[in-house]
Amino acid sequence: MNKTPEIIIVGGGFGGITAARKLKNTGWNLTLIDKKNHHLFQPLLYQVATAALSPGDIAVPIRGIFSKDDNIRTVMDKVLSIDAENNTLELENGENLSFDYLVLAPGAVYNYFGNDDWKKSAPGLKTLGNALSIRERILLSLEKADRIDHPEKRKPYLTYAVIGGGPTGVEMAGAIAEISKRNMMRDFRNLSTDETEVYLVEAAGRILNGYPESLSEKAKQDLEGMGVRVLLNTPVKEIRKNGVVVSDSFIETPNIVWAAGVKTAPLLQTLSADADKMGRIKVRPDLTVPGNDHIFVIGDAAYVEDDDGNPLPALAPVAIQQGKYVAEQIKERVKGRDIKPFSYVDKGSMATIGRAKAVADIRGFKFSGFFAWLLWSFIHIFFLIGFRNRFRVFAEWIWHYITFKRGVRLITNSGKERTEED
Amino acid sequence: MNKTPEIIIVGGGFGGITAARKLKNTGWNLTLIDKKNHHLFQPLLYQVATAALSPGDIAVPIRGIFSKDDNIRTVMDKVLSIDAENNTLELENGENLSFDYLVLAPGAVYNYFGNDDWKKSAPGLKTLGNALSIRERILLSLEKADRIDHPEKRKPYLTYAVIGGGPTGVEMAGAIAEISKRNMMRDFRNLSTDETEVYLVEAAGRILNGYPESLSEKAKQDLEGMGVRVLLNTPVKEIRKNGVVVSDSFIETPNIVWAAGVKTAPLLQTLSADADKMGRIKVRPDLTVPGNDHIFVIGDAAYVEDDDGNPLPALAPVAIQQGKYVAEQIKERVKGRDIKPFSYVDKGSMATIGRAKAVADIRGFKFSGFFAWLLWSFIHIFFLIGFRNRFRVFAEWIWHYITFKRGVRLITNSGKERTEED
Repeated sequence: MNKTPEIIIVGGGFGGITAARKLKNTGWNLTLIDKKNHHLFQPLLYQVATAALSPGDIAVPIRGIFSKDDNIRTVMDKVLSIDAENNTLELENGENLSFDYLVLAPGAVYNYFGNDDWKKSAPGLKTLGNALSIRERILLSLEKADRIDHPEKRKPYLTYAVIGGGPTGVEMAGAIAEISKRNMMRDFRNLSTDETEVYLVEAAGRILNGYPESLSEKAKQDLEGMGVRVLLNTPVKEIRKNGVVVSDSFIETPNIVWAAGVKTAPLLQTLSADADKMGRIKVRPDLTVPGNDHIFVIGDAAYVEDDDGNPLPALAPVAIQQGKYVAEQIKERVKGRDIKPFSYVDKGSMATIGRAKAVADIRGFKFSGFFAWLLWSFIHIFFLIGFRNRFRVFAEWIWHYITFKRGVRLITNSGKERTEED
Repeated sequence: MNKTPEIIIVGGGFGGITAARKLKNTGWNLTLIDKKNHHLFQPLLYQVATAALSPGDIAVPIRGIFSKDDNIRTVMDKVLSIDAENNTLELENGENLSFDYLVLAPGAVYNYFGNDDWKKSAPGLKTLGNALSIRERILLSLEKADRIDHPEKRKPYLTYAVIGGGPTGVEMAGAIAEISKRNMMRDFRNLSTDETEVYLVEAAGRILNGYPESLSEKAKQDLEGMGVRVLLNTPVKEIRKNGVVVSDSFIETPNIVWAAGVKTAPLLQTLSADADKMGRIKVRPDLTVPGNDHIFVIGDAAYVEDDDGNPLPALAPVAIQQGKYVAEQIKERVKGRDIKPFSYVDKGSMATIGRAKAVADIRGFKFSGFFAWLLWSFIHIFFLIGFRNRFRVFAEWIWHYITFKRGVRLITNSGKERTEED
């Protein structure tokens, strides 16, 4: 190839950002497209939803990451469709961009399994907007409860239901239990912490599926120790504005968080490539789309099996390693060469349950309790992009650890507020 | 009075919070009512609007301030009307509360002088919601401009109009000039800083009216030095979605900020007391409403003249001193005594214009430039309620001062985002 290659990366998550960083010194024209203007450190999003961190602590503007890299252009827009024949894609503002290599890292969206009307009552936790609306829902609910004297009447406002027992669900349930059982309650003297109920609803037989069984059990015990009611083998029948219908009972609450399942971004369907039931593209060993050597799919959007034939989990480390791989692969392709297939190095998985509580499985070594939490904290702070955030988040955490206080309990854009503005 | 007095404070701004703090050790029943759940450090709100600080840096939950004071009840609600005859007030949720003493500190709202349709296109800067929507407007406008190649076509998106040359307008114009002329632009390589235009539109003959003339002049020079176009004697004729119509020309821009005038909260009209044209209640020397010894009005909502017969400005120090005064007054009243009339001690006024630029008038001593800015910074950080925020804001500022970077350039709840959620 004689002309300098045009590379387009779709998605500013862990996979897309990593790929872009690895290609920034090539001098090739690289365009990074994302609907949002910021890269989000998703693993800590639940901490924004529970008022421990500010949005600014866990997100950085994508432009800021590449402001010194003249060959990287940042575009804030939505990709509508991909034309694999003519190597072009169409943006929402009508613009068409052409590419020699395309890296698709659009991530995933929450999957309501056809019940999209549940979305309103049970927001997922994927964007800062989600996290802020969950935060406000919880805070407003406490304010409401504080105004109601009759214990039975206020009970729903002190009840929380988290749907889905994966890492996000476990972290949310743990964090909500913390604030509702301790931190927040000091500010609501009318309310007693015994009144609050936190449910973690899981359809399968155990939480943290995909983690070693012993850690699932440990996590369940820890959560129950914090007062969380873990409901296993309990599929959700219906979600209403005022509560969740499970197998045999009704959990009455306006505070519902959806962490039950994800599907890939709709964009990928325009590829008309073979996908699994979650919509993840079944890529080839070099992470390209069958029949398109120059189109890669990585991260939550890609279906890749490990050596035992199990699909790789939708975790940051997978996306990061795949981002590195495609960057290398593209460099070789340009030279007309090729590198060996992608293989994932499992550095272990972990989930935090609450203050000084976590579970971790590092290459077969299983930790839990304070040490696992410490490990979790350091790894997560360490991987935050940008010193500024690292520094702030660290300060925040030290502060919380000492004071038990929640930093950012602000209700900024409630419905009331919006009508005031418009 | 034998029974313990019931005291209600309406408004969690500087005046209301100060009054509540001074009464917290009395053991009397005190209820603090605010529409929002947080106290806002208004003087730094423009820094949230310009992406220098996070909402959490300049706001604290009101409950958090009084969490240890058992005699203070915090209520998040809107007061609809006051019944001065029967000493009761009505809340939006239908509840009626009765009081022995009432302190009204509802603050002010932006005044569009009858053109409330201008509000949509030209938001004011009173709430965190306002600040966040201005921040997003500016950021989205830059993203738009970056996508347009034709310089003439993108000019509007690089133009900013601030209406009103008071302290808020001056601070906004200065901060916008900074980010658009320097900080932000590094991330938008297609755009040149000469393309950006910042207008400060003032109807009167000088900006910072009420400040000494020399400081108004200095502020104007500083702003112009930063590239701001200060238009004096320029009343606004009309505000449209796409720009501002002034005397003889049209400023085309979607980025309009309204800082032109305020009026008091509508609530006060239910008092049917004598008010000035801004709706400020003409209180008696003891800050009570004529005919109601037990109803006080303070802060932006009160019309009080200084010894020279000029109305006191709508500034935090005035509200704070009045809050202290009414607390003392109520303590004396309960004892059947009375204290001397309120008199304001002017500790001086200051306004910041930009990085290391400010003007100050401290008891006749006029400063400007770096020293005034340093003074401004320390005074403002010092008065932030709560060590946590003080600590964070200070860290933020040091960081900005070293790096010139804007911390929080996040687009979290743009229209796009909202539709995604709902």
